[in-house]
Amino acid sequence: MSNPTAAMLVIGDEILSGRTRDSNMNHLAKRLTDAGIDLREVRFVGDVRKTIVQAVKRLSTRHDHVFTSGGIGPTHDDITADCIAEAFDMPIDVRADAREVLEAHYAKTGSELNEARLRMARIPDGATLIDNPVSAAPGFSIGNVHVMAGVPAVFEAMVESVLPTLTGGTPLTSVSLRIERGEGDIAGPLRTLAEANPDLSFGSYPFNMNGRYGANIVIRGVDQVRVMEAREALAALFPGEAA
Amino acid sequence: MSNPTAAMLVIGDEILSGRTRDSNMNHLAKRLTDAGIDLREVRFVGDVRKTIVQAVKRLSTRHDHVFTSGGIGPTHDDITADCIAEAFDMPIDVRADAREVLEAHYAKTGSELNEARLRMARIPDGATLIDNPVSAAPGFSIGNVHVMAGVPAVFEAMVESVLPTLTGGTPLTSVSLRIERGEGDIAGPLRTLAEANPDLSFGSYPFNMNGRYGANIVIRGVDQVRVMEAREALAALFPGEAA
Repeated sequence: MSNPTAAMLVIGDEILSGRTRDSNMNHLAKRLTDAGIDLREVRFVGDVRKTIVQAVKRLSTRHDHVFTSGGIGPTHDDITADCIAEAFDMPIDVRADAREVLEAHYAKTGSELNEARLRMARIPDGATLIDNPVSAAPGFSIGNVHVMAGVPAVFEAMVESVLPTLTGGTPLTSVSLRIERGEGDIAGPLRTLAEANPDLSFGSYPFNMNGRYGANIVIRGVDQVRVMEAREALAALFPGEAA
Repeated sequence: MSNPTAAMLVIGDEILSGRTRDSNMNHLAKRLTDAGIDLREVRFVGDVRKTIVQAVKRLSTRHDHVFTSGGIGPTHDDITADCIAEAFDMPIDVRADAREVLEAHYAKTGSELNEARLRMARIPDGATLIDNPVSAAPGFSIGNVHVMAGVPAVFEAMVESVLPTLTGGTPLTSVSLRIERGEGDIAGPLRTLAEANPDLSFGSYPFNMNGRYGANIVIRGVDQVRVMEAREALAALFPGEAA
């Protein structure tokens, strides 16, 4: 597979303390899978400048795209934009285009564009703004890094703004087969099938619910016909137990 | 704060594809916070040997504890135990103590301890077994790395087996204050308060629900009295809007 690869960086103390449960990772993962972009790694870090800068540098050299979530609001703990500027060694300040977006928004809502809110117009030189149809304050893309908000509704809207600008790959076909048999009994035949079909990937995810147990086997590949053939071959090995 | 630090490594293609939503991170984060251990970083990686080995090496040298989740079942894609052995440069094979645990379990349930299931008794030399009261197959601790299952019920049980063996720190006191005011209006006074109280941490988490908007401010610190004083000081700045 030579699909583009991606990484995600989720920024925020509140997730690492367990206070907040992240939902942006799962959302992005699904949208990237749809687009044929392989999400290879996700990192969660706290609001710590050095850690964020280092993670952005590492991930952006290793992957075709990096998506960040969190830390671009108006409060003192929102340090993502400054960290990204540092990682790319670019100047950062309040930028006219971002300021205009905020001015128009706050004029409409009747709130004051004070110093704190103006921080949300701090954008590194050379970055392109990402539209925020929910609450105006923009995200931005610089190099291969796409910087987005942490609030799920805003994050999701920004993902929809960014995705059409990226070149995707061939979406994988994915099918699953539920087998009501101990995973330890499935493992042997499954390994043989996986070894005979190196162009496909086979994952096994055990379940144990309401007294029924077994595993969901997920088969993935770019060629839909091959994926379906492998599913049939696997089902034939467990007559009456697979569906 | 000199509390012990921790990192988590979540292993599995299914989470990066968006098919499965992880819940182990949030569970561990809460339990570590209770124990006074600071979770500093979480990484999600796929079932890729080199990536897992590298992540284990990095995280285990940087943190006091590393917790892993996933990849210790009986199927061919379960490669975590072998990766950990490689990271610590230790031999790995079916170990007598782990084999006994499995033999006793399968004798009771009437399933066969076949070659695939026996893979779950592969434990690196020098590791200590982690008890699995749910489905028998053990996790293990080696050095400062604690290797646990991905199935949430099993992961959670293993966390309870491991935590009492670790030295915790001073749990932080954490209080929150809900302020019904735009986050941009809260940001200025909040920054001043944060700068005046460098021993405390202040996080701001905006909400916008059913037409009401504002931010939840979370204040954390080891000294409960100082935390409560800061909360009162902040509340006094937003009379009638904070609760």
